[in-house]
Amino acid sequence: MPKRLVIAVDAMGGDYAPAAVIEGVKRAYDRNPDVFFLLFGDQDQILEHVKRVGLSEDAFKIYHTSQVVKATDKPSAAVRYGRESSMWKAIYAVRSGEASAVVSGGNTGALMAMSKIVLGTLAGVDRPAIAAIMPTVNYKQAVVMLDLGANAECNAGNLVEFAMMGAVFYRLLFGVREPRVGLLNIGSEETKGREEIREAAMILRNNKINYQGFIEGFDICAGGVDVVVSDGFSGNVALKTLEGTVHLLKGTIKNALKRSLLARICSIFTLPIVWKVKEHLDPRSYNGGLFLGLNGVSVKSHGGSDGIGHYHALQTAINLARQDLCEKIRTRLEDVILSTDMEE
Amino acid sequence: MPKRLVIAVDAMGGDYAPAAVIEGVKRAYDRNPDVFFLLFGDQDQILEHVKRVGLSEDAFKIYHTSQVVKATDKPSAAVRYGRESSMWKAIYAVRSGEASAVVSGGNTGALMAMSKIVLGTLAGVDRPAIAAIMPTVNYKQAVVMLDLGANAECNAGNLVEFAMMGAVFYRLLFGVREPRVGLLNIGSEETKGREEIREAAMILRNNKINYQGFIEGFDICAGGVDVVVSDGFSGNVALKTLEGTVHLLKGTIKNALKRSLLARICSIFTLPIVWKVKEHLDPRSYNGGLFLGLNGVSVKSHGGSDGIGHYHALQTAINLARQDLCEKIRTRLEDVILSTDMEE
Repeated sequence: MPKRLVIAVDAMGGDYAPAAVIEGVKRAYDRNPDVFFLLFGDQDQILEHVKRVGLSEDAFKIYHTSQVVKATDKPSAAVRYGRESSMWKAIYAVRSGEASAVVSGGNTGALMAMSKIVLGTLAGVDRPAIAAIMPTVNYKQAVVMLDLGANAECNAGNLVEFAMMGAVFYRLLFGVREPRVGLLNIGSEETKGREEIREAAMILRNNKINYQGFIEGFDICAGGVDVVVSDGFSGNVALKTLEGTVHLLKGTIKNALKRSLLARICSIFTLPIVWKVKEHLDPRSYNGGLFLGLNGVSVKSHGGSDGIGHYHALQTAINLARQDLCEKIRTRLEDVILSTDMEE
Repeated sequence: MPKRLVIAVDAMGGDYAPAAVIEGVKRAYDRNPDVFFLLFGDQDQILEHVKRVGLSEDAFKIYHTSQVVKATDKPSAAVRYGRESSMWKAIYAVRSGEASAVVSGGNTGALMAMSKIVLGTLAGVDRPAIAAIMPTVNYKQAVVMLDLGANAECNAGNLVEFAMMGAVFYRLLFGVREPRVGLLNIGSEETKGREEIREAAMILRNNKINYQGFIEGFDICAGGVDVVVSDGFSGNVALKTLEGTVHLLKGTIKNALKRSLLARICSIFTLPIVWKVKEHLDPRSYNGGLFLGLNGVSVKSHGGSDGIGHYHALQTAINLARQDLCEKIRTRLEDVILSTDMEE
């Protein structure tokens, strides 16, 4: 029998933890029966939900922890005082080699800080970044965007690093040899935007990366590039504005329906489209922000996720661990950095 | 007979100028027969379109100009070499007192730079900002956001100034005495985000402004605040991501329809909702970015606008000129700044 893939799960991370997390694990196990889950958190609560969802005893092992990192904890405080937490222990399982990846829906800043300390950054990487997969106008084509909030301020070198890591990540996920990379800016002309972005553009043009130039907020989901690179502040604003706009549209449609009985009746006939669109854009399907640049696979699940959302984050972690993501990023980065150095 | 309101129009500004601009003027005149338009641009082209749309001779006067500011021109170059352009001349009509407001769909950077030089900034204002009105989840409630791209980098003082100008602007537009102001950040906790934003928050808390705290990209259109304040880079990214997401959703729905004949047939029944939603979210209805902080009303129409889009920008200019926006911002800013100074 081949060795089972092991995933460490912070069962206490997220607004509906541990209930929603265990539902996600159940769903992930049903689809990946060769995966084994280490569940970190309050033993009694975990057991209760394991029974409720009917998770097989072959699927998991519980590591009892008494401490939980709260959403309001400062990352620096969490790192200092949270070493008995489910989050810290789950990350540690990757470092010790017991698990191949860790998933948490808890405090993003704390998860990033702990992951950096426990797993360490890859050689050659200055700043790890949060990356996520997002939908585009074209079915079957996704876009990877980073950084989504790990680094509020970035210099040109950081942006170039994000571009390299993003490209490697996209290649691993979708098999595209030379993903098209764009830099997020506020205009497509070369003279636009901030100094550090213009500098990063100059470096990327003389690099092995398939660099396409500046893109604007409008183009993120347009499918013209595969990887969108930005500082963590603008990236976070863009991601959340995207989510907010989807919500705005839903709300507007709901309001319009309320005002007209005819429209409400008619809407029943369009359920098939609504479902298709929902499936394509469901934020839960894109759940699973990845911390790129670490010595280990650490996946952030959305704090407000339900079971389906956590399942997608777990599935992302499983896929990346199976493909040995970190080793491949390391090799590829070395390759790119070496070739860049030589060209200089 | 009362004195007619006069609006200066850069007839050559925008992708479909002068055709779309003149269509907008025709529409604006039909709804505001007491307004007189000064049309700056190529006389022959303007006359051709004036005839085509049947604009009354009582509605306008043409000022022939031979130069046009291009979308690709650098603002600094436009200011230096573009003094015979339709844009410069139209702005100048406000300075000379001939017109009460200027509208252009041309190069944003050039329009801002020229407006600053020709009109000057209001006393007490360090950096003018671009503001726009956007829809929210609630019908009948709009949100004003600034800066949308005039200042890629801002310090705390700039953000505070934007908050004040935005609040005055909102009050004038919608009659809300104390508009709720939020600062765009990447988390709602006080420790999140960039230094300058935290500093601005501190100043705003001890100010006459009805300051509500940090908001995130998700909240921009949620209706929880009336004014969203951000630096020009993040604001521009947010605005364009919002537009891009609406486009993404439209594309996704179209694709879903293509794949299913049944869905396509069903969709006919939902046209009434689709129209209502479109009306509420139509970016053309929100056209008209305003340059706040200048000694004169200068409105930017979207470059890609059609006649309806330009009409909305013209209508915004007409409304603001009628309400004597600049004088009111000046008085209110003085009031707020004085009271802030005294409290210090």
